Parts: sequence; C-alpha cells; structure tokens
Amino acid sequence: MSQPDPKRVKVDDDAPYELIYWPGLPGRGEFVRLVFEEAGVPYTDIAQNQEKAFDAVTKLTALDNVGDEHNPPALAPPALKHGNLLISQTTNILLYVAPRVGLAPKEGNGVYHLNEIALTIMDGLVNELHDTHHPIAVGQYYSEQKEEAKKRSSYFIKERLPKYFKYMQRLFDAKTSGEGPWLYGDSLTYADLVLFQAVDGTKFAFPKAVEKMEKSGEYDGVFKAYQAVKERPNISKYLESDRRQAYGDGIYRYYPELQDEE
Amino acid sequence: MSQPDPKRVKVDDDAPYELIYWPGLPGRGEFVRLVFEEAGVPYTDIAQNQEKAFDAVTKLTALDNVGDEHNPPALAPPALKHGNLLISQTTNILLYVAPRVGLAPKEGNGVYHLNEIALTIMDGLVNELHDTHHPIAVGQYYSEQKEEAKKRSSYFIKERLPKYFKYMQRLFDAKTSGEGPWLYGDSLTYADLVLFQAVDGTKFAFPKAVEKMEKSGEYDGVFKAYQAVKERPNISKYLESDRRQAYGDGIYRYYPELQDEE
Repeated sequence: MSQPDPKRVKVDDDAPYELIYWPGLPGRGEFVRLVFEEAGVPYTDIAQNQEKAFDAVTKLTALDNVGDEHNPPALAPPALKHGNLLISQTTNILLYVAPRVGLAPKEGNGVYHLNEIALTIMDGLVNELHDTHHPIAVGQYYSEQKEEAKKRSSYFIKERLPKYFKYMQRLFDAKTSGEGPWLYGDSLTYADLVLFQAVDGTKFAFPKAVEKMEKSGEYDGVFKAYQAVKERPNISKYLESDRRQAYGDGIYRYYPELQDEE
Repeated sequence: MSQPDPKRVKVDDDAPYELIYWPGLPGRGEFVRLVFEEAGVPYTDIAQNQEKAFDAVTKLTALDNVGDEHNPPALAPPALKHGNLLISQTTNILLYVAPRVGLAPKEGNGVYHLNEIALTIMDGLVNELHDTHHPIAVGQYYSEQKEEAKKRSSYFIKERLPKYFKYMQRLFDAKTSGEGPWLYGDSLTYADLVLFQAVDGTKFAFPKAVEKMEKSGEYDGVFKAYQAVKERPNISKYLESDRRQAYGDGIYRYYPELQDEE
C-alpha cells in the first residue's frame, strides 16, 4: 500500500513521553502534567525551557503545519509526542495516557465514564472560566472587553459555578463513586486530577466565590477530593517543585474587578 | 465486593442504541444521529416524540439525578443508552459508537487522531458558533445580549471562522488524509460526519461568510468532503426524511443582524 496508514501508527511502549505546551502558566498542559506526576512516570516538559517551548508551540500552531507521515496537524497545544505518535486536545491526551500509567482501566467501559467526566469539567467549567475574561474575542486584550467580562463573570459566579459544582458533587453522591474520597470507583483515577486542577484554578480566579461554596457545606465531596489529591505524596512534592508553573495570564486569572460584589 | 464496580459495566452487543436528546432541533444530538444513519445501524431517537423527549431530558438533567447502579449522572444531553451503559458528551458517544459500527478503527492509535479532530471541530468551531449569539449568559435570552452578540459575531466571522476552516483544510493537505475526499485515511470515518454537520450548521448561521470562503477556493478539501458526505446514499436519504430535525433556536441560529456587513 503506497498510502500511509495512519490507523496503524505503532508506538514502542518504551518511547519517552514529551509534552509540548506554552511556558510560564499551568493552562491546559497542567492536566497532563498531573497525570504523569501522580503516576510517577517520567516525561519531558518542554515548558521547562522557555525558548525551546516557544519554538515548539510556534511550529505546532504554524498555519502551514500539515502534520507529518503519521500524524495530522494539531490546532493548538497541549500536544503529546510518544514515539511516532503526536496527539493533541487535553482530554484526548488524558484518554491515551491514563490507562497506560494506571490511572484509568485498560479495558471495559469505565473509560467512557471517565472521559465523560473529564469533558464535562474541562470543556464546561474550564472553558467557561476562560471566557469570563475573554467573552468577545480570544485574540484581543482583556482591557478591550472589560465591560463584557464583568457581565459574564457576574453570571458565571451566580449561575454557572454552582451548576458545575453541583454536578461534581452529584458524582460523589452517585453509587459509582465507591469507597474513598474518589470520583469514580474505589481508587484514584485521572478524573480526580482533572477535578483537582479545575477547582484549584477556580479558587485562584474567584477565591471569594469558591470560599463561599466551601463554607456552605453543600459540596463536601468536591472539596474532600480536592484535598485528598493535594495530599497525595507525588502530587504534594510536585506542587512544591519548580515543575509546577505559577498562575498568570492564562486560563485562570485573578481580576479584583470581576469578583463577586456581595 | 459489595461496592458496584462501574469499571466493568457489561453491555450486550445486541442491546439497542437509544439516543436521548432535546426534540425540535439538530443540536449536538445530530452528530450522533449521522453516525447511526451512515452506518445503517438501528437506533431509537427519543426526539421523535416531543413529549417523551422532554420528559427524558428533564429527568436526565434534574438537579437530584445521581445516576444509577452502573452510571454516574450526566450534566447535559446528548446521552446514549446501550444496555446498562449510559454515557454523555457528544465526542465521547462518538468514540464509543463509531468503532462498533465501522466508522473508526477498532484497534491501534488512529482513534486518538479521530477524537482529536472531532474535539477540535466540536469543542472549538461548534461551541464558538453557539457563543456568537450567547456571549454573556447561556441561560438568558438572545435579546438581552444582542449588542455583545454583534461584537462576538463580527470577531468570529473575521478571525475564528477562517482559523477553523484553515485547520480543516490542513487536515486534507496532510499526508494522513490518504486517497479519496476523506479527512483521515482512505475511507470515510466519523470525523467526516462531524465536519459535515459543523459546516452545515455554519452555513445555516452565517451563509454569506461561508459562501465567501467557498468561492475563495482556499478550502476545497473541506467543501468537497462536505459534498461527498451529503451525497452518501444513507445520508442523503436521511437528510430528506423527517428524522432530520430542522434548524431553529439551537446552537445554529440565523440572525440577519449578526451577518458580515461587507
């Protein structure tokens, strides 16, 4: 067959995992980092080298990037290289990595529940969090859409944040959450790491609103799981290391003027 | 083991496929319908019965829904029931169904490329399309955010639409697209159906802008694949049937005042 057969990209299990993401902020790359860190599986994170990271992301997102022999082009980072395979989209990378590193079942249908939870938290809560400061134009400055950002944030705090936290709490109230503080089944899965990072970023962006929810006692499952992830030995070491990027001008931003006014 | 083991929800291959979605609009449920229709695989679509559909979606999205013995609760439709398994999130449902009905490879890593493409088109283009008419508050009326919708639509037409269409065109320019008019490999996959519906919905919402892109000749791969899907025997029969919902007040809306002004 003269055509490449992309359906059959073979990957050597020993191939190194290489994360390609912007330097200087946790962003969506953080969800991928947490999976490797919790699992104790080695990976390289190009964001650790600012210059190389800018080069790699610029190449990845170039308008003339048409991929390579094995892989279609990606639209945006994060991307993961594993041998010949290059994949993008955060939940997709998690879906690929988690079963390989022991953070999702390798067989059966549980992975579709985990992917559903990851998608709901990430493409719901995390994307909407981003749009609170960029409701009109992702490529324009915050200062150019400040007025609309105030409106969207106010609605987000009042309606959307409780909606997503109630959803996450219901996952703990469900029979599928099993023993222990975890979201799904009896042991930690990558969905717990997704929840952790989403809650952590939300706390950074809207600290007053999250504190109010925590004190209400209505979301105990959510905050217990958040704390349990934070105290995992590998995660707690990671959070104190310089591999953890500080929050800045990424998805999660703190603007005093966008906070709850009550 | 006294705890349920959700990682092991067994599904009988002969179990019927049941789609749960709002009645009266194509919406995100449409991506799921197209997969079954193209594959010629029987499914029930509760949206065909308006009253039953409202009941089912209301039950699914109820704030006290905590799932069942096998499944966590879903936040929003579409959901798919297959035997004991209930899963939600559009790209997740496609990932589950497509390999089972012959529209994605059953093994190997190709499925991660297909999921990446589906996610980029759906959580990018389709979600942003929705936000053109609801930039501030998804739960409020369009008329309450008309001014902001005009701003966001203008930016969407100028910057975002070409960005996504260029991305889709690059998928055809890539070595991974193979022979034929298809996105990935040599034969039709569910990613082509995702592209079809995304382009079709965009044509409905922003006809002038899409016509301009089509005439430019810069996106020939995209429009050829769109046409090739439309002409598939099963799809063309489906589009003329009453199983295909008409566009209305869903994700894809046509507002004359949001069109390109040039």
